[in-house]
Amino acid sequence: MLANTHPATRWPTPPVTRSVAPGSVGLVQRQYAHFDSPLHLRSGGTLERFTLAYETYGTLNADRSNAILVCHALSGDAHVAGYHTGHPDEKPGWWDDAVGPGKIFDTDRFFVICSNVIGGCQGSTGPSSPAPDGKPYALRFPMVTVDDMVEAQRRLLDRLGIRKVFAVTGGSMGAMQALQWAVAHPDRVEHVLFLASTPRSSALHIAFNETGRQAIYADPNWNNGDYYGGPAPTRGLAVARMAAHITYMSEASLEHKFGRNLQDHETLPYTLAEPEFAVESYLAYQGRKFVERFDANSYLYITKAIDYFDIGADYGSLRAALERTQCAFLVVSFTSDWLYTAQQALDLVEPLRELGRPVEHHHIEAPFGHDSFLVEVDLMTPVVGGYLSRAWTSRCE
Amino acid sequence: MLANTHPATRWPTPPVTRSVAPGSVGLVQRQYAHFDSPLHLRSGGTLERFTLAYETYGTLNADRSNAILVCHALSGDAHVAGYHTGHPDEKPGWWDDAVGPGKIFDTDRFFVICSNVIGGCQGSTGPSSPAPDGKPYALRFPMVTVDDMVEAQRRLLDRLGIRKVFAVTGGSMGAMQALQWAVAHPDRVEHVLFLASTPRSSALHIAFNETGRQAIYADPNWNNGDYYGGPAPTRGLAVARMAAHITYMSEASLEHKFGRNLQDHETLPYTLAEPEFAVESYLAYQGRKFVERFDANSYLYITKAIDYFDIGADYGSLRAALERTQCAFLVVSFTSDWLYTAQQALDLVEPLRELGRPVEHHHIEAPFGHDSFLVEVDLMTPVVGGYLSRAWTSRCE
Repeated sequence: MLANTHPATRWPTPPVTRSVAPGSVGLVQRQYAHFDSPLHLRSGGTLERFTLAYETYGTLNADRSNAILVCHALSGDAHVAGYHTGHPDEKPGWWDDAVGPGKIFDTDRFFVICSNVIGGCQGSTGPSSPAPDGKPYALRFPMVTVDDMVEAQRRLLDRLGIRKVFAVTGGSMGAMQALQWAVAHPDRVEHVLFLASTPRSSALHIAFNETGRQAIYADPNWNNGDYYGGPAPTRGLAVARMAAHITYMSEASLEHKFGRNLQDHETLPYTLAEPEFAVESYLAYQGRKFVERFDANSYLYITKAIDYFDIGADYGSLRAALERTQCAFLVVSFTSDWLYTAQQALDLVEPLRELGRPVEHHHIEAPFGHDSFLVEVDLMTPVVGGYLSRAWTSRCE
Repeated sequence: MLANTHPATRWPTPPVTRSVAPGSVGLVQRQYAHFDSPLHLRSGGTLERFTLAYETYGTLNADRSNAILVCHALSGDAHVAGYHTGHPDEKPGWWDDAVGPGKIFDTDRFFVICSNVIGGCQGSTGPSSPAPDGKPYALRFPMVTVDDMVEAQRRLLDRLGIRKVFAVTGGSMGAMQALQWAVAHPDRVEHVLFLASTPRSSALHIAFNETGRQAIYADPNWNNGDYYGGPAPTRGLAVARMAAHITYMSEASLEHKFGRNLQDHETLPYTLAEPEFAVESYLAYQGRKFVERFDANSYLYITKAIDYFDIGADYGSLRAALERTQCAFLVVSFTSDWLYTAQQALDLVEPLRELGRPVEHHHIEAPFGHDSFLVEVDLMTPVVGGYLSRAWTSRCE
């Protein structure tokens, strides 16, 4: 059953108290799709039923050929663009700069879909969701993989009546899903827009993810995952987020943004009791903000899914996996992204070229590290927006 | 009072059960120097008395001109080389590859000294030491800076009767101390060998250090620093160490050493209950090993000292600080060190050159990240050993 609304509905923008910026999709609603047939997971586990939270922007065209599936990264959710309440303090969706009328993902042309991943905590079924016995799954939730995330999305697209997407895209773990789509369902994807990611999580990814998990395990409130209804392991999760957040920035962007600026002091107070440097205060803020919206168990499961990602592993080799693809690729990497390096982008680009697949690779000079795919929308506009525009035009000629 | 031994004593090597590798300094003893006059600290605090633990290797020559002061990094201690017990399982000092007869710091030629920093936990006075009231200082210990570490070392050199060192050296925080020596006591240093470091801790350093501190604060056993006699905050400290340890390696060295190798499994077990990847097991081991030997409060204090380090801050500018120096400099950076970057080395080298100071800079191609200064001894031998040898020879001509 598809809840709430017809998928092609473009939500009208009612009068709101805020002034919505030009190019905004305006007010949007989170929608839910409930699935009652089992989802058999790569880990051997099964979800007998599950729900996906999703949002859509723009209008599905008559031949259902203008869909773009956006896949979110570790800490993202289905709320890509627009506003939920219209409250003046409300922040828009996580990629609002990129999704809307006239933007990179132009909702005047495309029907954009994003669903919260399975294992998540923003409306889709995850460890904080009730298990069949009515209690939260907690660690009874089966381990999930990027493959499983994509399989759940496939069911959503079937439900929405979309056989083939014009493009599937995302940054970081979102790009992993996009690549998985192209390999697992080659006949359902025309273009993959692969941003700031890798075909295979590196030892460095795993190391940072594991450090974050250990910070959560070390929080006594974590209680082996069984904390729902009691205090959550927010201190551990905040530490995990702080470490991860550093990896999303770059040495240069941290230096530019904070340098050695002091926080609320003219001279060094020499104390452990409060943040002394602005960058400390910023990290503490990032940690606090994150724990308000994210479930610690979801963090464990989703970081594991990232660690597991190795697109070649299930097909014998990377080349064998990529040989299955039938789509065109745009691969974007950023010079200052030290988490998902230029080499990792090439690890995808080179075999695709050898296989004769259409592939464009852009290594964009950008100082903001891994987060560039979120914040460097101006730099991405000619590359990603231009690619999409050319691809759409040539398709319609 | 200088404890235990005359400083110039070369400890004889008694028969041991282990076969000591050629080039080892053999069995050594930790020595202690107790100081009864107050140490006034940059933070405004005072230590009425303090102790430095130190070791020496080689023999001080007649005119006391062959001393090399080695300064240790965050997690180091005075035990640079040789063995304490001779037990077959004992590991040698932390820079044993570099310090010994015929090695980079050739103990046939030089008298090598290293003391544990003030604030440390390996024999020198720090937060785990008894305060005048007999109870551990814990957070009553005053905040310390690199400047304070050097001032404590200065007293030790006075005690040892060494007016001027031929060289002062170290990597990372050790190099910060070496640079501080050259600026604070320009007439007491002939050469600074500055390895894998910076004249000014960056926002990235502070960010990672703060993440580690927050992991310790989040451990309920930390108890606002008051845990001596009870369970120590080992889980928090282990997480801090894991995050830091990653920053000491490089993406390439982690990939080379571990890649996606599994730990004790042929196929992925898909579990949160145990390490799945070898790199996870390695980090856990690093965490466990560290908490056996390191005090969490010392970790807080020493990381703060690193954060505070900005050699120009106390002198108006970097140039004004460096203008005080009278020594020659060897600056070494490593291509894969992303914590202490090539640019940070240049931030020291360029103003030194402008000031006409003798300075050699080598940017060494090495894959092991920041840890290169510890593990790439073969690569450092021609550069650092060669520099020292030339400098010593020209001095004696």
